[in-house]
Amino acid sequence: MPKTTPKNALYAQSGGVTAVINATAAGVIETARKHRRHIGKVYAGRHGIVGALQEDLIDVSRESLATLRGLRYTPAGAFGSARFKLKGIEQNRTEYQRLIEVFRAHDIGYFFYNGGNDSMDTAHKLSQIGEQLGYPITCIGVPKTVDNDLPFTDCCPGFGSVAKYVAVSTREAALDVASMARTSTKVFVLEVMGRHAGWIAAAGGLAAGKAGDAPQIILFPEIPFERAAFLARVKQSVERQGYCVIVVSEGAATADGKFLADAGTKDAFGHTQLGGVGPVVANMVREALGYKYHWAVADYLQRSARHIASKVDVEQAYAVGKAAVELAVRGANAVMPTIVRKSSRPYRWTIGSAPLAEVANIERKLPRDFITTDGFGITAKCRRYLEPLIAGEDYPPYVGGLPAYVRIKGVGVRKKLPPFGR
Amino acid sequence: MPKTTPKNALYAQSGGVTAVINATAAGVIETARKHRRHIGKVYAGRHGIVGALQEDLIDVSRESLATLRGLRYTPAGAFGSARFKLKGIEQNRTEYQRLIEVFRAHDIGYFFYNGGNDSMDTAHKLSQIGEQLGYPITCIGVPKTVDNDLPFTDCCPGFGSVAKYVAVSTREAALDVASMARTSTKVFVLEVMGRHAGWIAAAGGLAAGKAGDAPQIILFPEIPFERAAFLARVKQSVERQGYCVIVVSEGAATADGKFLADAGTKDAFGHTQLGGVGPVVANMVREALGYKYHWAVADYLQRSARHIASKVDVEQAYAVGKAAVELAVRGANAVMPTIVRKSSRPYRWTIGSAPLAEVANIERKLPRDFITTDGFGITAKCRRYLEPLIAGEDYPPYVGGLPAYVRIKGVGVRKKLPPFGR
Repeated sequence: MPKTTPKNALYAQSGGVTAVINATAAGVIETARKHRRHIGKVYAGRHGIVGALQEDLIDVSRESLATLRGLRYTPAGAFGSARFKLKGIEQNRTEYQRLIEVFRAHDIGYFFYNGGNDSMDTAHKLSQIGEQLGYPITCIGVPKTVDNDLPFTDCCPGFGSVAKYVAVSTREAALDVASMARTSTKVFVLEVMGRHAGWIAAAGGLAAGKAGDAPQIILFPEIPFERAAFLARVKQSVERQGYCVIVVSEGAATADGKFLADAGTKDAFGHTQLGGVGPVVANMVREALGYKYHWAVADYLQRSARHIASKVDVEQAYAVGKAAVELAVRGANAVMPTIVRKSSRPYRWTIGSAPLAEVANIERKLPRDFITTDGFGITAKCRRYLEPLIAGEDYPPYVGGLPAYVRIKGVGVRKKLPPFGR
Repeated sequence: MPKTTPKNALYAQSGGVTAVINATAAGVIETARKHRRHIGKVYAGRHGIVGALQEDLIDVSRESLATLRGLRYTPAGAFGSARFKLKGIEQNRTEYQRLIEVFRAHDIGYFFYNGGNDSMDTAHKLSQIGEQLGYPITCIGVPKTVDNDLPFTDCCPGFGSVAKYVAVSTREAALDVASMARTSTKVFVLEVMGRHAGWIAAAGGLAAGKAGDAPQIILFPEIPFERAAFLARVKQSVERQGYCVIVVSEGAATADGKFLADAGTKDAFGHTQLGGVGPVVANMVREALGYKYHWAVADYLQRSARHIASKVDVEQAYAVGKAAVELAVRGANAVMPTIVRKSSRPYRWTIGSAPLAEVANIERKLPRDFITTDGFGITAKCRRYLEPLIAGEDYPPYVGGLPAYVRIKGVGVRKKLPPFGR
């Protein structure tokens, strides 16, 4: 009886990257290597699905063991990520067919797609079209998003580290403002990510040790912004504590759904200036109350801050990568490994799974009972949820005062197909 | 022969705080306690010189040993700082006289003033007026400034940690941008502090491991900004490396001395919007070249980031505090301890001192030969200077995923004088 050659695997990173997405890559790659009876070579899409479409595949076996080990502590997408959404099979049939062609040409039978909502949808559709075209592929979605908005999983790898960054930074900046407030800055605004869900902003609330501590105000996308109530709270905080720290989600919006960030600052030429709810909120405070302020916009710093990653997050990121491969070799398809919380204090978790068909395109927002009645803070329930996710430190190695992050060689796989036309 | 009672000491924090100014406080306090023959009680001004003027003094002996030990790893100004400049003796005679009154009332014979340029000037003047009013005080300036702009000292405590933060953050964010550039963000702008000197921006240059690495552009206050040359470099970088990371100093300015930050963005009401050279530069790129961009403004996050402090910086911050007391008990007056570099590779340093009369009000800028000829990068000489200052990590203890920073009880000393009228 001839031995069947095991199919190869393709791993691809998708969407905004995180401090720990490469830890997931390490989990996938190292686990695949332990299942040589089922999985042959591991390839990675250069810049994710775009590389897959263009047959631009990276041969992971050409990377050194040191590089592969280094993925665990290297932030951002080592293989390149992409913001490229495949829509319905009918609208993007050419792309789906091309993917199957590439998979077939390189004998790829496993697809591990590491991303958020859209990517789970794509992975799901790809498993369907593979069936239709007579080239079945095992498609496993691997969760990743700093926004923490995937359903079915208790949390998303990537979130714990950005949450820790925001909590630590808020605590530190608050000490700074408190030092200066008597004669100088009284209001500090920190803008954080989260266009539709307030999970990251909520993490700022962990900075507070007790009532009255900073941040005194959190502005969530889930709570319609009301100028008067907000300003009254700023004033109260400055009068009582001497200063006010505000954590604002980039998605903060008024009741009519308008983002505060779009509140209309214009440059000297009259063009609307993009971005920056932080400065918008700070200016509002200055104009209404006259307090001296400072503002910070963490932007990419927050999601790439591997130097202060959460240990729990790193472990979970690795675990979902490992579980993805284990699910695949056990014959599962069109599923996503999930994090299942067994208890909060002490924190215990395990890995479960959810069907991609159900995960795709659902956004999980912050529940109302995670936000205080006044809309400006987090509840004890929210704190109980968040605390375990930022637990533990997992420092990268340093050389010469800087983290010794690795870079892949990225040796390409020889192409077998004509270029994909645009 | 009656034993003379030793004079008390007053320690005060001044100006913008840093990640390690409290380590200097620890150096002063712990060393003073070892010199009980010379120094009695240690007081601290609540919010620095403002507390001293208002006779609002903190009795440091009422703090627990755990709190005092915790100062070494707690950022910002634990005793409160102040932006309050005392000018010439003639203009501010009332304030200087009041300070002497307070010192006399509390038997304070030593003044340790922990700040930057202005504070060195104040400490110097106070030592003069004390002489004039027949109440001589030993005035020691203790260097602190993230801006690294004090003369005579090789570096300023506080700078090494902000430099490390900026170098680490630039390296991390650059990996993020590189991951995304193929389909999304191509230009990333990080705004850092340094209104008049480009030391902090220069530290961003340490993120690069080799030529072509990010940051591809640094904008220094010392180099007049030229739009065309800048945009050409952005374009070149995006075309060659696929992306461009820009570190811009808040003090970046055009040849006529206008800050880029004041380039005139207006809000919806036509008011000029304050601050943010980061978004100004990013918008310029978008308008001229159309690249998708992101920007971050680190603001207070950079100078309070004790979680990623430089070990060398923490050691030097403590050392200048210790040296200040040792200088005082050896009879020095109107001096500032300095950091003296003995060699760069390996890094060796020792403590020296400089007369306050010469330190006061001199700003040390980045030398021209620390900046590359094209004005967009740092030279090997600059790198040799900067590298040792970010060396080593000195992590604070964590509890529940967050740094366990300490807060003082801040027990006040009983007042003996009438309030200081304004």
